[in-house]
Amino acid sequence: MSQPKVVLAFSGGLDTSFCVKYLAEDKGYEVHSVLVDTGGFSAEELKTIEANAYALGVKQHATITKTSDYYNDCIKYLIFGNILKNNTYPLSVSAERVFQAVAVAEYAKEIGANAIAHGSTGAGNDQVRFDMAFRIIIPEAEIITPIRDLKLSREAEIEYLTNKGVGREWAKAAYSINKGLWGTSVGGKETLTSDQYLPESAWPTQITKSEPESITLEFEKGELKGVAGERFENSVEAIQKLAAIAQPFGIGRDIHVGDTIIGIKGRVGFEAAAPLIIIKAHHTLEKHVLSEQQLYWKEQLSNWYGSLLHKGQFVEPVMRNIETFLSDTQAHVTGKVHVHLAPYRFHVEGIESPFDLMSSKFGSYGEMNNAWTGDDVRGFSKVASNQVMIYQKVSESNESL
Amino acid sequence: MSQPKVVLAFSGGLDTSFCVKYLAEDKGYEVHSVLVDTGGFSAEELKTIEANAYALGVKQHATITKTSDYYNDCIKYLIFGNILKNNTYPLSVSAERVFQAVAVAEYAKEIGANAIAHGSTGAGNDQVRFDMAFRIIIPEAEIITPIRDLKLSREAEIEYLTNKGVGREWAKAAYSINKGLWGTSVGGKETLTSDQYLPESAWPTQITKSEPESITLEFEKGELKGVAGERFENSVEAIQKLAAIAQPFGIGRDIHVGDTIIGIKGRVGFEAAAPLIIIKAHHTLEKHVLSEQQLYWKEQLSNWYGSLLHKGQFVEPVMRNIETFLSDTQAHVTGKVHVHLAPYRFHVEGIESPFDLMSSKFGSYGEMNNAWTGDDVRGFSKVASNQVMIYQKVSESNESL
Amino acid sequence: MSQPKVVLAFSGGLDTSFCVKYLAEDKGYEVHSVLVDTGGFSAEELKTIEANAYALGVKQHATITKTSDYYNDCIKYLIFGNILKNNTYPLSVSAERVFQAVAVAEYAKEIGANAIAHGSTGAGNDQVRFDMAFRIIIPEAEIITPIRDLKLSREAEIEYLTNKGVGREWAKAAYSINKGLWGTSVGGKETLTSDQYLPESAWPTQITKSEPESITLEFEKGELKGVAGERFENSVEAIQKLAAIAQPFGIGRDIHVGDTIIGIKGRVGFEAAAPLIIIKAHHTLEKHVLSEQQLYWKEQLSNWYGSLLHKGQFVEPVMRNIETFLSDTQAHVTGKVHVHLAPYRFHVEGIESPFDLMSSKFGSYGEMNNAWTGDDVRGFSKVASNQVMIYQKVSESNESL
Amino acid sequence: MSQPKVVLAFSGGLDTSFCVKYLAEDKGYEVHSVLVDTGGFSAEELKTIEANAYALGVKQHATITKTSDYYNDCIKYLIFGNILKNNTYPLSVSAERVFQAVAVAEYAKEIGANAIAHGSTGAGNDQVRFDMAFRIIIPEAEIITPIRDLKLSREAEIEYLTNKGVGREWAKAAYSINKGLWGTSVGGKETLTSDQYLPESAWPTQITKSEPESITLEFEKGELKGVAGERFENSVEAIQKLAAIAQPFGIGRDIHVGDTIIGIKGRVGFEAAAPLIIIKAHHTLEKHVLSEQQLYWKEQLSNWYGSLLHKGQFVEPVMRNIETFLSDTQAHVTGKVHVHLAPYRFHVEGIESPFDLMSSKFGSYGEMNNAWTGDDVRGFSKVASNQVMIYQKVSESNESL
Repeated sequence: MSQPKVVLAFSGGLDTSFCVKYLAEDKGYEVHSVLVDTGGFSAEELKTIEANAYALGVKQHATITKTSDYYNDCIKYLIFGNILKNNTYPLSVSAERVFQAVAVAEYAKEIGANAIAHGSTGAGNDQVRFDMAFRIIIPEAEIITPIRDLKLSREAEIEYLTNKGVGREWAKAAYSINKGLWGTSVGGKETLTSDQYLPESAWPTQITKSEPESITLEFEKGELKGVAGERFENSVEAIQKLAAIAQPFGIGRDIHVGDTIIGIKGRVGFEAAAPLIIIKAHHTLEKHVLSEQQLYWKEQLSNWYGSLLHKGQFVEPVMRNIETFLSDTQAHVTGKVHVHLAPYRFHVEGIESPFDLMSSKFGSYGEMNNAWTGDDVRGFSKVASNQVMIYQKVSESNESL
Repeated sequence: MSQPKVVLAFSGGLDTSFCVKYLAEDKGYEVHSVLVDTGGFSAEELKTIEANAYALGVKQHATITKTSDYYNDCIKYLIFGNILKNNTYPLSVSAERVFQAVAVAEYAKEIGANAIAHGSTGAGNDQVRFDMAFRIIIPEAEIITPIRDLKLSREAEIEYLTNKGVGREWAKAAYSINKGLWGTSVGGKETLTSDQYLPESAWPTQITKSEPESITLEFEKGELKGVAGERFENSVEAIQKLAAIAQPFGIGRDIHVGDTIIGIKGRVGFEAAAPLIIIKAHHTLEKHVLSEQQLYWKEQLSNWYGSLLHKGQFVEPVMRNIETFLSDTQAHVTGKVHVHLAPYRFHVEGIESPFDLMSSKFGSYGEMNNAWTGDDVRGFSKVASNQVMIYQKVSESNESL
Repeated sequence: MSQPKVVLAFSGGLDTSFCVKYLAEDKGYEVHSVLVDTGGFSAEELKTIEANAYALGVKQHATITKTSDYYNDCIKYLIFGNILKNNTYPLSVSAERVFQAVAVAEYAKEIGANAIAHGSTGAGNDQVRFDMAFRIIIPEAEIITPIRDLKLSREAEIEYLTNKGVGREWAKAAYSINKGLWGTSVGGKETLTSDQYLPESAWPTQITKSEPESITLEFEKGELKGVAGERFENSVEAIQKLAAIAQPFGIGRDIHVGDTIIGIKGRVGFEAAAPLIIIKAHHTLEKHVLSEQQLYWKEQLSNWYGSLLHKGQFVEPVMRNIETFLSDTQAHVTGKVHVHLAPYRFHVEGIESPFDLMSSKFGSYGEMNNAWTGDDVRGFSKVASNQVMIYQKVSESNESL
Repeated sequence: MSQPKVVLAFSGGLDTSFCVKYLAEDKGYEVHSVLVDTGGFSAEELKTIEANAYALGVKQHATITKTSDYYNDCIKYLIFGNILKNNTYPLSVSAERVFQAVAVAEYAKEIGANAIAHGSTGAGNDQVRFDMAFRIIIPEAEIITPIRDLKLSREAEIEYLTNKGVGREWAKAAYSINKGLWGTSVGGKETLTSDQYLPESAWPTQITKSEPESITLEFEKGELKGVAGERFENSVEAIQKLAAIAQPFGIGRDIHVGDTIIGIKGRVGFEAAAPLIIIKAHHTLEKHVLSEQQLYWKEQLSNWYGSLLHKGQFVEPVMRNIETFLSDTQAHVTGKVHVHLAPYRFHVEGIESPFDLMSSKFGSYGEMNNAWTGDDVRGFSKVASNQVMIYQKVSESNESL
């Protein structure tokens, strides 16, 4: 019988490095490490991680580049839906991790793996996201989670690796940072309790711009296609361009307080200049071009979409139905949005769109027009108040009994 | 037969001054002017308005002080519900106008008026709010709307008044401003089209503070009872105190783009430092002390509440049911919220509450604990993915047919 | 200047016959009568109506056959959405009237009408449906509503027509009946007050079958394609076939109590065997093949769809977005549904589908299986109860303070 | 050290009888059996069960009578909310089991139990309901689930008991039946697959009435207080009276297809004449006395309430908030509902209520009135169609570009 194959979601950090050795040497697996790149790594970083994987003894390391898919299959809908979890957090890490977990599972299925492993601990959301994607996509594979099961301390892991001849330095950062296309999360110290904010020094991008500037974003059917005069075929590049312009202002920093999948409350800092600007700009444009009913139902479905995504339910079939709905609403979401950037903050100045329903051709708010008369509104008010008027009358007639 | 009585919602401006003369002299009514004070007027202003009313020839002028009622019957629920229309606007004017309209109608009913009048034009939301409140509460009274019906120009109104011997100066402001307890609106020029922001000079409160400061807000069962170390029995005073501290920073400025009741899109600028800070602080506190389910349903009901309020449906019976629900959710919303204020912006630093569900006693996010094991989460993930796993299997087995 | 053209929604009844004469002779219009056939008329009825129109003096009469469009653009979505207004009424008349109003307006636009007319009174929903469709689709045309405006009695209308030489008999039915593809409504007498049911004799289809029978319905992607062994390319025919089988049992009779668009409560009887059976059968099939999440959101969007349709908002853009969503959910809604029919009632016996998620391959409800263990469920329950467990602990610790 | 105490949810059947012996003799526990009576047992049955418990060797058996609490804390809200899971099932078993689980847990807490046990298998919903209630209310107690963990066959359990000297006959019923105040469930054979209905003989209540009858139900603030002329202080008795009248007609039989908590689809038959009649009667009354907005939000919250209840989340704090909302909506839900009963079916004939909004005093549907004019409706339609009219214009102007 041949050696069983395990696919390991590999990041190159201490935990997943431990997993390679443990799976290969203690458990006898042929280890296939895989890293799903969704835009958070440089080419150099990817090369180093690959080299480290082979040095640890994997049979095969795969770098799966999924940045475009990540945008097309996920981020795009977060924009269409103006999705901010709890009105705050653009789901920077949630979206990325779920997307990566699915890609790892699909890879494991493709190469016919017998087992599939992740290095998450038993204390956060990511374990559930990996578990669920793995179970749904490749249910026949055993799921192995050494870090969660062994509950080793950091020191114990280092000692284990040193004993196995892995002599790397494992830097311990003051904050745990996850950098991605859709924002960077910052956890640790202050975020572990409820009452304090992150200090200036904790933010990954330090503030280097002080002079306010105004830029224009261009949307086509809901997708960002132009930033500050530059046009992009690929919206990923547009997002990256905007991040380069806006993140040095320190825009888009906040702390998200949320419900984890495992039921406890958690806090995480994040900086996400591009996501927050894009969402507010896109939403403002939508307020001009969509009907009130469209705005209402987009919000309902989008919040739910964000919530299921956060909970690792990306593969749930209703997600595809919601995406279809959201795409269908974007036909008119085309136009320019003017945005003002300044240290720590931004605001939307205004929009221009051929689909703007606030066109003065049809009567402006606060100014009389010819499309309807005062008598029409009087009639409207009368009919629109009928039910409550009757309700009041009925109430009064019963009180007097 | 005695002279018919009309109650007129009176603000002292050109439009309602015209209405007094028109109703009294052209229409032969005994005019009862009434001003509902919801916290937007100084004592001196109220005295001047009263004097002007009598000078114009009203039979009786009533100043109805409703600031406490306004807070208790309306603003309080906007806080409980963290209500920002379209995720932006605290309903500063909407809430106030609807509340005033109801008070005017109740007054008219009380004094047995034959008619009831407002000075709104035919181009905005306020006409509908007045019409509806009047119709529902005192359906037997005729509703008279001289400004909407006569469509007189500003100049024609002034000429009419001059001819009647009213020689006052009627200043024409560059922007139409409505100041109230729950924020100040600013309309005109830039807000009439879609693409521009209000200039610095247009904002009613100019920025006079530049040094950031941190303050603590204290909530009790959802109500603001302490600001920067000072305790308030009356939350109205707490709101006013916070406004005094925060508005000089220029915090809480934005432009709201929304759907008017009459179906067109409208834009309005507003400055609302206290409402925006209170809502974000209150919401953050809630994220710590309420369950995910409570947060979800509060948001659903609150958005609807805000929407009905905006549309003048304050008397709709479901509003009372929603208020009951919201009040019931506030039992644990007690604690301190630390807020950082700076020019143009603020952020919530953190919270402290005896009801904080993020207590480290029950396991922290990102750290292992004793309340559940890795195996428990493994089982959770497995069961939680059952349905989609089966769905995938069924889909695949049909594809292969 | 040429004679102005008016398009009149014409049914051939007393009211719209009056309108022809009134518009042509009193108002000087060139009258274009139009009847939109959505499946409620026989060929002979259509011929008689056309002849009557010309006899009354219309310039042109058009019969627009829209049965297929009515199914494809409207009924289909009522089935996809399992739409029963207030859990009762399949929107038999609402859907039809709105659809007809849109078709009339499009016809008026096509022939360049100067005005557009309907014969509804001022007391029901239909006036609003016509008004709104006309205004949205051909806003430049004047809307003329003689019956609503003149408020003539039935007798006065007959006298007017007699004076104009129209000597037809105008039968006065005990109940007002509207027969259509999606059900027949019955209004009058008992439905005008709250406490009584319609007598046996009032139902348009009398009961002629007493022997129960079981039939099978076949759905393909949500559409009814087979009835009792017969296959149909065109679902309209499948609906008609089912109606022919089931209506003689007296199935699908009830009284709907609802909120009219104008704010009052209204009651209407209906018999709709085919709609009620199709919806229950389709819904049952969906419960087997869709995920819980899909069922939940389908219900939300469908109820809203039905509500907007009822209110005449068929052209609202969100309706197209919802239709796209609903269609997208139907990919797996394929299978057979066995239905038992008996006098006054029916029930669904069961379903068969290749997409059935209740397949025994994945573990049956109530029976142990290999896909998960008792320990997995224990873990699931533990994690799923974390938040409320913590909430209880926090509550208790505060009580003891 | 004293012997550890376990509280066992005891029904007297084979599974929980096994648990007594197993816990007492193999595990060394002092067993406290408890049966929560929610109206499904006769006094005699309770006595037999108690005797059997002691015969099996429990230290203490408690019968907790909770019928009134069950009504007041649970059933009442199912009525207020017109709750039918998936538009079909009144949650007969779900509600009862959850309620019982909570009562067992509270009892365990009260007597200071070290462990708490239930006899559910690993294949259904009940295990989760017990697990969750136990964990939330008495998290310090170990949860023991012998049947789920040992996975013994029925034969193995009988052999075990026989070996322990328990020589009772354990009848194996063709169907598993659960009888309760809010309906009786029937599972087995046909319900284990998708395509068949239960045979006539499977229904617990055989049909013994053939002559149709009409009765009147009387509601006071949403609660059933009168049935067929008899008044009840206690609504539990009213429900029982109605069940006695209606169940012999075979009314309220159906099969529910639903999503289990563990993700698989399940089917269960039920007969629930009283629940289905009460809900339809109550809902019809509400359609007459509540506003459209109230009906809408009641439906949203109620469906969710039913769903959380089904999933064992009865203790979730939002449930209390929803109950408060629902109670608040019932102030006007007072009146009579006339119901027609016949074999297999019933219909609501009509209602009478002093709060009926369909009062002819305010204008009847389909008849003109004095409260508003045709012109008012014309104005209403115009204003209500503004947004879509503008949307169409904007769309057309872009098409022509």
